[in-house]
Amino acid sequence: MKKAEICVEQRAQILIEALPYIRQFYGKTFVVKYGGKAMEDEAVKRAVLQDIVLLRYVGIIPIVVHGGGPEISEMMRRLGLKPRFVRGMRVTDEETAQIAEMVLAGRIGKELVDQLNRMGALAISLSGKDASLLKVRKIAPEHTGGVDIGLVGEIVSVKTQVLNDLCEKGYIPVVSSIGADDEGRTLNLNADLVTGAIAAALQAEKVIFLTDVPGICRDKSDPSTLISSLTAQEARHLLETGLVDEGMVPKVEGCLRALDGGVPKAHIINGSVPHALLMEIFTDKGIGTMIIPDKGTI
Amino acid sequence: MKKAEICVEQRAQILIEALPYIRQFYGKTFVVKYGGKAMEDEAVKRAVLQDIVLLRYVGIIPIVVHGGGPEISEMMRRLGLKPRFVRGMRVTDEETAQIAEMVLAGRIGKELVDQLNRMGALAISLSGKDASLLKVRKIAPEHTGGVDIGLVGEIVSVKTQVLNDLCEKGYIPVVSSIGADDEGRTLNLNADLVTGAIAAALQAEKVIFLTDVPGICRDKSDPSTLISSLTAQEARHLLETGLVDEGMVPKVEGCLRALDGGVPKAHIINGSVPHALLMEIFTDKGIGTMIIPDKGTI
Amino acid sequence: MKKAEICVEQRAQILIEALPYIRQFYGKTFVVKYGGKAMEDEAVKRAVLQDIVLLRYVGIIPIVVHGGGPEISEMMRRLGLKPRFVRGMRVTDEETAQIAEMVLAGRIGKELVDQLNRMGALAISLSGKDASLLKVRKIAPEHTGGVDIGLVGEIVSVKTQVLNDLCEKGYIPVVSSIGADDEGRTLNLNADLVTGAIAAALQAEKVIFLTDVPGICRDKSDPSTLISSLTAQEARHLLETGLVDEGMVPKVEGCLRALDGGVPKAHIINGSVPHALLMEIFTDKGIGTMIIPDKGTI
Amino acid sequence: MKKAEICVEQRAQILIEALPYIRQFYGKTFVVKYGGKAMEDEAVKRAVLQDIVLLRYVGIIPIVVHGGGPEISEMMRRLGLKPRFVRGMRVTDEETAQIAEMVLAGRIGKELVDQLNRMGALAISLSGKDASLLKVRKIAPEHTGGVDIGLVGEIVSVKTQVLNDLCEKGYIPVVSSIGADDEGRTLNLNADLVTGAIAAALQAEKVIFLTDVPGICRDKSDPSTLISSLTAQEARHLLETGLVDEGMVPKVEGCLRALDGGVPKAHIINGSVPHALLMEIFTDKGIGTMIIPDKGTI
Amino acid sequence: MKKAEICVEQRAQILIEALPYIRQFYGKTFVVKYGGKAMEDEAVKRAVLQDIVLLRYVGIIPIVVHGGGPEISEMMRRLGLKPRFVRGMRVTDEETAQIAEMVLAGRIGKELVDQLNRMGALAISLSGKDASLLKVRKIAPEHTGGVDIGLVGEIVSVKTQVLNDLCEKGYIPVVSSIGADDEGRTLNLNADLVTGAIAAALQAEKVIFLTDVPGICRDKSDPSTLISSLTAQEARHLLETGLVDEGMVPKVEGCLRALDGGVPKAHIINGSVPHALLMEIFTDKGIGTMIIPDKGTI
Amino acid sequence: MKKAEICVEQRAQILIEALPYIRQFYGKTFVVKYGGKAMEDEAVKRAVLQDIVLLRYVGIIPIVVHGGGPEISEMMRRLGLKPRFVRGMRVTDEETAQIAEMVLAGRIGKELVDQLNRMGALAISLSGKDASLLKVRKIAPEHTGGVDIGLVGEIVSVKTQVLNDLCEKGYIPVVSSIGADDEGRTLNLNADLVTGAIAAALQAEKVIFLTDVPGICRDKSDPSTLISSLTAQEARHLLETGLVDEGMVPKVEGCLRALDGGVPKAHIINGSVPHALLMEIFTDKGIGTMIIPDKGTI
Repeated sequence: MKKAEICVEQRAQILIEALPYIRQFYGKTFVVKYGGKAMEDEAVKRAVLQDIVLLRYVGIIPIVVHGGGPEISEMMRRLGLKPRFVRGMRVTDEETAQIAEMVLAGRIGKELVDQLNRMGALAISLSGKDASLLKVRKIAPEHTGGVDIGLVGEIVSVKTQVLNDLCEKGYIPVVSSIGADDEGRTLNLNADLVTGAIAAALQAEKVIFLTDVPGICRDKSDPSTLISSLTAQEARHLLETGLVDEGMVPKVEGCLRALDGGVPKAHIINGSVPHALLMEIFTDKGIGTMIIPDKGTI
Repeated sequence: MKKAEICVEQRAQILIEALPYIRQFYGKTFVVKYGGKAMEDEAVKRAVLQDIVLLRYVGIIPIVVHGGGPEISEMMRRLGLKPRFVRGMRVTDEETAQIAEMVLAGRIGKELVDQLNRMGALAISLSGKDASLLKVRKIAPEHTGGVDIGLVGEIVSVKTQVLNDLCEKGYIPVVSSIGADDEGRTLNLNADLVTGAIAAALQAEKVIFLTDVPGICRDKSDPSTLISSLTAQEARHLLETGLVDEGMVPKVEGCLRALDGGVPKAHIINGSVPHALLMEIFTDKGIGTMIIPDKGTI
Repeated sequence: MKKAEICVEQRAQILIEALPYIRQFYGKTFVVKYGGKAMEDEAVKRAVLQDIVLLRYVGIIPIVVHGGGPEISEMMRRLGLKPRFVRGMRVTDEETAQIAEMVLAGRIGKELVDQLNRMGALAISLSGKDASLLKVRKIAPEHTGGVDIGLVGEIVSVKTQVLNDLCEKGYIPVVSSIGADDEGRTLNLNADLVTGAIAAALQAEKVIFLTDVPGICRDKSDPSTLISSLTAQEARHLLETGLVDEGMVPKVEGCLRALDGGVPKAHIINGSVPHALLMEIFTDKGIGTMIIPDKGTI
Repeated sequence: MKKAEICVEQRAQILIEALPYIRQFYGKTFVVKYGGKAMEDEAVKRAVLQDIVLLRYVGIIPIVVHGGGPEISEMMRRLGLKPRFVRGMRVTDEETAQIAEMVLAGRIGKELVDQLNRMGALAISLSGKDASLLKVRKIAPEHTGGVDIGLVGEIVSVKTQVLNDLCEKGYIPVVSSIGADDEGRTLNLNADLVTGAIAAALQAEKVIFLTDVPGICRDKSDPSTLISSLTAQEARHLLETGLVDEGMVPKVEGCLRALDGGVPKAHIINGSVPHALLMEIFTDKGIGTMIIPDKGTI
Repeated sequence: MKKAEICVEQRAQILIEALPYIRQFYGKTFVVKYGGKAMEDEAVKRAVLQDIVLLRYVGIIPIVVHGGGPEISEMMRRLGLKPRFVRGMRVTDEETAQIAEMVLAGRIGKELVDQLNRMGALAISLSGKDASLLKVRKIAPEHTGGVDIGLVGEIVSVKTQVLNDLCEKGYIPVVSSIGADDEGRTLNLNADLVTGAIAAALQAEKVIFLTDVPGICRDKSDPSTLISSLTAQEARHLLETGLVDEGMVPKVEGCLRALDGGVPKAHIINGSVPHALLMEIFTDKGIGTMIIPDKGTI
Repeated sequence: MKKAEICVEQRAQILIEALPYIRQFYGKTFVVKYGGKAMEDEAVKRAVLQDIVLLRYVGIIPIVVHGGGPEISEMMRRLGLKPRFVRGMRVTDEETAQIAEMVLAGRIGKELVDQLNRMGALAISLSGKDASLLKVRKIAPEHTGGVDIGLVGEIVSVKTQVLNDLCEKGYIPVVSSIGADDEGRTLNLNADLVTGAIAAALQAEKVIFLTDVPGICRDKSDPSTLISSLTAQEARHLLETGLVDEGMVPKVEGCLRALDGGVPKAHIINGSVPHALLMEIFTDKGIGTMIIPDKGTI
């Protein structure tokens, strides 16, 4: 069916069908992890950012966290460095950490706010260093299988004041996954875990991870095995049994951190589908995988 | 084309296409005159009220003014009174004024707020008496061709404080076209003129009259002669040359009062088309007739 | 003694004697049920409304609830309907409910605010539908002796936000005893019970019922048997033993609802005595009957 | 007529007759000069202070300025000093200025606030030094007939911020007529002129001088020659022709300063009559002498 | 070393070394008792007041309480009265109380605010009577060894609202140790105890007593026996064993009242050393004696 | 003279000598350009940032703009690019602009806020893209001698809202000199000109440029030829006659833009002297060169 066929009456009807969702989420905070291929295709990127601006205009309070692994790797290669990973985490020496910060906070974050602002938002990009947003520490080797992967951090706590101050004044915060530890060392952070930690700290209504696949699938190669909904306990079980794809692991962990912190719903959806965010939020069925707290935990 | 054919991707796309309009009108005040057949058909009524609630949720500040002529006439007949009109204005004795007030402020206004509230709004119905909203006086016979039509009022001024107080707290005011003069007499008011006066006093962004016809037509019996857009001067000329249909006269006068008061755009649209409000506001082409100020007047 | 004999010095002295009471009640909320003959005599009505405006100006926060049974009955008769009562409650079909709403919310409420505003107040009339003030449900037949009296409601809860918003901005809310249930049906409510429920929900300082008799009398026909003061338990006992006059029953029940909700004093006074409200509030002795909580309940 | 004869109905009636005045002055600022015999008789003092507290409770914003000449003279005598006056102004050496400050700011001001507070107010006593309320300079000998009367000041300007801050929070400021010049010298000020200057600076609604006589009389010894009302120009003429009694001169000058500053009404009334303030404010006729601006000056 | 030798670079360095202290105390309340010789030497007084103004400008919230015993005694003598003391407390008849009030609230308090204001502050002097700041009662003879020392008060409670209101608006309150009991009698208060009570009521960060000696010394005549730090329990022990010098007793009691009320640190320092306050606050070592709560009490 | 020789009394004295300056600048906005060697030496950098934090704590509102030319050139070289300049401005192709953004907004800005926050501030780094702070356009070749130097921008206007919002909440904004034009191209900006434009837009009290030399010298190689003070006109004359050193040109232009916008004082000082900022602000003599508006222009 072609778009041209949708008449103005249908357009109005569709707007009105969004009303119950708008009402439900009015004034609520959504933390959105934006990354992967949804950041590479200009048309998809535009669609994602439009969705976020629309959320703001219909009274939802969006906070964006972004990644940028491929861009970091590319810049490393241009500078003659070879990216290395342990268990999906980037081995990060000082130079790499500096490159990660420049790419994430200096290029991708700024580009996102520039595009959001062009669409009518007032967005500000922050890293974990701004207003001491993130308290982080170097991840202990025992958390990475005994391997010291260098200047990679874990999040100790989130200082929500700056997010609240900005959101209250109508700004959309865009957070880059970089922080500094107590000794002033720049640490590279996993954006999925930053997302989960921020959602938990803000007691967000929803945390949504945009990824490149339809969600969690029982068989990664077969989209028809998508799990639409599961509980935190089930998600934990999947993690423990190694049934979750490596790239999906931190997303599921981010979901669990959010759920543990009191967020009632976590979603992993395919951000490379244009307007996937709106589809998830403004339809009954939703898309992708939703993880909910275990019964009795709320 | 059947509605069922619209897929979720198209829905999202249509939502996003509303963004520029939402952005443009964010925080702006719209005064909507609601009346005529759009109030009689339950499905249409529901659609109109949904539109108003949606406007509120996307950051527009709607104020509703409603009429109710047929309901007043019906109640008069039930009480053994015969409605009489001079130049389209109801001849109003004391009993009639009381009936008008009961029907408008006591039944229709309350029903509208009840339905709006059920849809998620916080609406409050007011008449011109509440918080002294409308300062009115009995219309002089020279304004009605020398005929004394009784307790019919004209609006001297609008005390906007109560509207501002309510809107600021998130309420939707629903205004019934009844007032009291300095001697305490209840006066029946023309809802179209109340609409124009309120829009002017609030320096609204738009005033929109919902009626039963597509707009102003050169030939009333031929919808294809619809005038899409005209200036205040052209509208005045139409009024003076008697080319405007009697029922349309007060609407055009309401538009002109609003435009004279600084409102940049006045619209007369067919409220009996479901979601006509949304169609007017959220599409480029708009529907119905738009009246704009004369050049150089702003 | 003639009024003219009171000299200016005495006037000043009397004003100053009100000071301790003004101080005591400054910033406190009073819920006043206004009804009965005090609404029929124009001079008495004027006196009651002046009292309410004065309360507002001396820093007390008045909320008015009004009835209007006789006016409803009269309008029913004009429309060819015959009022019927069961246990003092009006049997209410859909037409009757509509008439009650029109008369209460459309005529009496609006007239009261108009007069209050003329005296310098900023009053707004509300029904239970406005801003969803009252959550109500159809009264179960078992509460009315097994008889289904139709569209008569009982109050489930009071949404105080709109009252607080209005009072904070200086408005006097005037509440008509009409609501809508979850199915959207208009329900007729007992104004005395609405008064008690609102007083309880607001944790008012006082609830005062204006009626046509001096208060609760041991012998209805003998004003000298007035009970000046009794406890909630004693009032309950009077109700149970059937010693309370039928018309007084809902007032006593309204008092008890208020007291149960934490209101420290409930009064039933003769509103047909001019300025009875001021006499009650600004003198030590008070007038009418005062009901206080049982010892140990506060 | 004895007070006991006034029944409760009359009391209520009298309260209600104050309503139009309360309404008229609600939220308006009154500057009251309190001094003379009204400060010496305990019963009269109590009555004056009650009036001021009542004004606050009915929504008027009172500011009190007090004098205390006799108390200063008495303390001087106790310390072996002999009070001396030139043209009604106290010749003030350093010791005298210190005594004036101690008596006014340290005793009378504190006693007034203590009594006001006991009656339910929140009063704070200030001198011109507190928060730099009054900018003053030593009066030049040419203003006192070429005689240097020492540490007596004239008011250059009033820093209204502290008065506004206190009134906004509900406090009643009580001002003692003492200031310090740019060199830090304590200056004795004329309380009448302080009153006028403060009223002018605050654009008060009324300035009222409580004195020991009925007002300005054509013949000082004959109260029946009281001038009820005169214009600023007429008052100036009286001053210039020397027809104003010496003690009355600064009061008239205080009135003129207030009127020149935009205060619409200045009053000189007999403060030794109990509740004279209320009589002036809450009756149509008023008492004492009222001075109004010349026509065309407002 | 002469001051002239300090170059501009060193000045900047010293300012910057104050930063950690400024940061630590930003927004915190300090109650400072000012009295003794520090009030008699003009240069020292100027230094103390400069310190207080500086505290305000660097974000600390200072509240000053002052004494004035010698000035009261001197005024008594000038009026032919002979000061008498019991256990260090002034025997106070009505005349003495009046003198104390005049001297403290009328002269010393006003002079302090005038000087503070000249240095750029906005200070207001209050006594316990202003805004009913201090609730006091006549001290019972059993607290003074069975001797009735007359109109001397003890502090029942502190009404902190006026202090909070003033501080929030940027004013520095200067409190004179005078109050009025429930019967309206003026009572002389011990300024040290007022200081402790106010610090406790405000949950101040620090209470600091400026005195004429280096602090608490084991041997009063030997400054080298200064006790730099002790616990509340140790201080109590010193009091009980009579090892504290008479003049120091109320200061120690004031410290204990503050500590008991939750103030974490109380200091007794030598106010006659210029800028002792700054030295205590802006250096690590501090000066004088610090009393801290017993372990486990916070 | 060694630091250890400064005793605690002198320290207090020096603090107190800063009071008049603190008072003078309380609540005023200072825009500080930070760059050059002051950013390269860790000890100097630390001193500069401490100064800025101290300013904030003593009530001054600092806004920091930083450069980073050498760091950009270094990163270009690491990426195999050769920095080129025309008239002191960097020739900027797309890759260079991206590198500039990464280095400035992604590394230097973040490092500055991290260090400021470690010292007790709440700093946030922004580029011209955040919240659309800077509206910029590609500089026209005619402004660069007919040479197209590529993606270098000039500042059209400053959207001060975000700076005001952040400063009001206590944050210190740190601005990187990067913007995006209407077509979304990243433009490299001259940090000196950004500084001047922001100071002008905010009507700052002072704009201060930290550079590597003592100020404007008549003979660049001879510090003794420092011009302490000159007017805007004199500065313009210096620019026109080519007597200003190339590196100093944009600083002088930044000063002039600020002065033209209403800033009363512009300073160029040697930032490589530790605490030069404090020396300039907190001493009478000041350091470096001060440019003031021409007479009669304010």
